[in-house]
Amino acid sequence: MTENTSAYHPLTVEEAIDVARSVTNVFYPTDDLICDEIGDGNLNLVFRVRLAHSESASHTPSLIVKQALPYAKVVGESWPLTLERARIESDALLFQGKLVPQLVPHVHYYDETMAMTVMEDLSDHVIMRKGLIEGNRYPLFADHISEFLAHTLFFSSDLGMNQQEKKLHVQRFINPELCKITEDLIFDDPYTNSPNNNIDEQLLADHAKLCSDHKLHLEVALLRQKFLTSAQALLHGDLHTGSIFITPQSTKVIDPEFAYYGPIGFDIGAIFANLLLNAAGHEHWSHEEQLREVHRNYLLSTIREIWNRFDEKFRSLWDEHGVDRISRTKGYQDLYMEQILQDTIGYTGSKMIRRIVGLAHVADVGSIPDQAAKLRAQRIALQLGTALVKSNRRIRSIEEMFTICEHAYKGVYTS
Amino acid sequence: MTENTSAYHPLTVEEAIDVARSVTNVFYPTDDLICDEIGDGNLNLVFRVRLAHSESASHTPSLIVKQALPYAKVVGESWPLTLERARIESDALLFQGKLVPQLVPHVHYYDETMAMTVMEDLSDHVIMRKGLIEGNRYPLFADHISEFLAHTLFFSSDLGMNQQEKKLHVQRFINPELCKITEDLIFDDPYTNSPNNNIDEQLLADHAKLCSDHKLHLEVALLRQKFLTSAQALLHGDLHTGSIFITPQSTKVIDPEFAYYGPIGFDIGAIFANLLLNAAGHEHWSHEEQLREVHRNYLLSTIREIWNRFDEKFRSLWDEHGVDRISRTKGYQDLYMEQILQDTIGYTGSKMIRRIVGLAHVADVGSIPDQAAKLRAQRIALQLGTALVKSNRRIRSIEEMFTICEHAYKGVYTS
Repeated sequence: MTENTSAYHPLTVEEAIDVARSVTNVFYPTDDLICDEIGDGNLNLVFRVRLAHSESASHTPSLIVKQALPYAKVVGESWPLTLERARIESDALLFQGKLVPQLVPHVHYYDETMAMTVMEDLSDHVIMRKGLIEGNRYPLFADHISEFLAHTLFFSSDLGMNQQEKKLHVQRFINPELCKITEDLIFDDPYTNSPNNNIDEQLLADHAKLCSDHKLHLEVALLRQKFLTSAQALLHGDLHTGSIFITPQSTKVIDPEFAYYGPIGFDIGAIFANLLLNAAGHEHWSHEEQLREVHRNYLLSTIREIWNRFDEKFRSLWDEHGVDRISRTKGYQDLYMEQILQDTIGYTGSKMIRRIVGLAHVADVGSIPDQAAKLRAQRIALQLGTALVKSNRRIRSIEEMFTICEHAYKGVYTS
Repeated sequence: MTENTSAYHPLTVEEAIDVARSVTNVFYPTDDLICDEIGDGNLNLVFRVRLAHSESASHTPSLIVKQALPYAKVVGESWPLTLERARIESDALLFQGKLVPQLVPHVHYYDETMAMTVMEDLSDHVIMRKGLIEGNRYPLFADHISEFLAHTLFFSSDLGMNQQEKKLHVQRFINPELCKITEDLIFDDPYTNSPNNNIDEQLLADHAKLCSDHKLHLEVALLRQKFLTSAQALLHGDLHTGSIFITPQSTKVIDPEFAYYGPIGFDIGAIFANLLLNAAGHEHWSHEEQLREVHRNYLLSTIREIWNRFDEKFRSLWDEHGVDRISRTKGYQDLYMEQILQDTIGYTGSKMIRRIVGLAHVADVGSIPDQAAKLRAQRIALQLGTALVKSNRRIRSIEEMFTICEHAYKGVYTS
C-alpha cells in the first residue's frame, strides 16, 4: 500500500499531451494536439487533450487526463491528501465499468506513480447541476441512475458478490482520508460552531436552532455511526449532481474518489438531496408559484421514479443473482429494502442541511441573486432536511417523503 | 499481503525447542529442555517447551510455540486455510495485550514465515469449559471477562479509537477464511440439511422444526447480515469457554485467530451461549433438580453480572475516553448499549443452536452419558436458543433473557 511518490509531480500541459498521445487508437501519431486544464474540482488537475484544428469541440477525438493533487485546493495546501485516492477512483471506475459501461467514462489507462487516470472525454455532456439550474429536464435520468445504483450496489454487496471476495474488496477500498472529509463536513460541522462552516448572516438564527436541536443530533449521530461501520456495498461516496455528466440521452457518473464500503442509502440520499436542493433553488425563478411548482413536481416525480425503479431493479437482481440461499429467506428482502429506504431518507436530509450551513454550498441555492428568494430556498432546504433526518427511522414508504416535503414548503411560506 | 510460504513447514519437536531457547530471559543456555505437542484444536500445532528435569510441571519456566497449519484438521486436509490467520492472531494478541495485559498470554515473538507465535505458557490454568463441566466456580470471571470485553471492544471502535486509524485497523483484520467458517457453521448449516451438520438421531424431528421455522430464519438472516457488514469493533471472534484459560484467581483469553471487525454483541453472545450450554449440560448431574438449579443459578447470575459490569465499564470508558464530541450526543449512549444488548441476545441464541445440531458440538452437552438427560439438555439449548434469536430485536433489558430462560426450562420439563 506504500506509494512511490519519488517520481510524482503535477503534470504540465505538455506532459498531459504526451500521455494522451501514448493511448492507442484515439489520435494519429501526426495529429497536432492541444490541451486545457479544465478542473473546477478541489482535489485534482483535469486536462482535456484534443485536436488543435477542429471545428467542433465535441465531435473530435479527445481524452481526459485526470491527476490527483497531494492536497485539497478548497482549503489551500494545508489539507494534505495522499495520492491513494487516485487508485481508489480508478479501481472504482473499472469496477463500475464492468457492470454499467454505458453509465461511466471508459478508463484507458491508470498510472499509479503519477496518480493519473486517462479516460474518455465527456465534453459533449454537461454537469447535471448546471443543466438543472438552467431548468432543463432529463427524462431518461431516473432510469439511468437507478440502473447505476442497483447494479453497482447490488453486485458489490454480500447479496451479489461472494462474501469472501467482498471482504477483499472492502480491504481494497478502505478510504480514511476522503471518509474523514464526509464525517466532518456532513455529520459534525453543520451542528456546531465549526470554523469550517460557511453561514450567511441571515441564517445565523436558523443555524443556532440546528445547534440546539438534540433530537436532530441523535439521528445525525446514528446516521454517522452507520456511515462509519456499515460495510454494505461499494458506494460512489459523493454522488451529487456535480458528479454526473448528462445529456437528454446519456448519463455518466464520474469522480468516485470518495468510494468506500458504506450504507447503500448514502448514495441514493446524495441524489435525492441534490434534486431537492435544486427544487428549493428555483424559488428565484419567478414570483409565479405555479411555474416553480411545475419544476418542483418534475423533480419530485423524478425522485419517486428513481426510488421505484431502483427498488424494482435491485429486487430483480436479487431474485436472479442472489449468491446464496440465505438471501432468499422469506421476508428478508422486504426488511432490507425498507432499511435502505430509511437510510436514504436520513442521508438525504443530512446532505441538504450541510449544503446550506456547511463548508461547501451548491450553486442551485448559493447563486440565487435575490436575497429574499435565497433565504426562502435556504429555509426550505433546512426545514425539509431537518424533518427528513428526524423521521428517517419511522419511514415505511417513499410517499411519506413527499408529504414531509409538502409540509416543509408550507411551513416556510406561512412563517 | 502475499505470504512467503517457501520456507514454511510444520515444526518438529526439536525445532520448537530451538525456537523456545532463542527467546531471552526464560531458560538458561545450559537447560535441558523437553517438548510436547499438546494441541487439541483443529487448526494449529501447539508445542509446550519446558525444563526436562523439574518436579512440578506448572512452576518451572516454560513457553508455548503455536504454529498455524495450512489446513483445518477437523475436516482433514481438504479444508485449506492460509497462514495469514497466524498473523491476525498474533496482531490481535498484541493489541489486546496493550489494553488488558493481565487477561491475555504474553507474546514473546512472532515469525511470519513460519506462521508461529511464541507466547507465555498457561499450563497452571485450565480450559474454562473443562472447569465448568466439573462444576467449578470462578467468582472473579465476571469481573475479568467484562474488563476484557469493555476494553478491547471500546478501544477498537469508532468511540475509543481515532476513526481514520480504526479504518486501517479494519483493513489489517480483514479475515475472509475464518469468517467463512462462522458464516457457514453458525448462520447457515444449522437451519438446513447440510452435510456439515452433526445431528443425533434423537434430534432429527427437532432439527426438522428448525429447518421449517421461517420466523427464526429471518432473524438469523439479519444476524448474519450484521456479522457480514457491521465493522463495529475488533472482535475476538471465537470467544467460547474453550478459548479461555482460567483459575479462581486468573482469566486468560486465548486463540483470537477469528479476530475481525464485527458487531460487539457477537463476542458477548459467545460467552453467554457457552455458559447457558454448560447450564443445560448439568441436566446429567443428578436427579435432584435442586442441585442443578444451584449450578444454573450460579451461571445465570454470572451472566447478569457480566452484562451489568460490561455495561458499566463500557459506559465509563466512553464517558472518560470518547474520542469526539458526537459520541456525547444526548441519548446516543443509551441507544448504542441497547443495540449491543439486542445483538448479544441474538448471537447468544444462534450460538447455542449451532452447538447442538451443527458441525462442532460442546462437551458440556455432547459428553453426557445418560441419553435421556442428554436429550433434555439438547432440547433446553435448542428451545432457549430459538426463543432468544426470535426475541432479539424486542429485548430492552438483560432481565428479559432470564424470563425467556425460565420458560425454556419449563417448556422442556412439561412437554
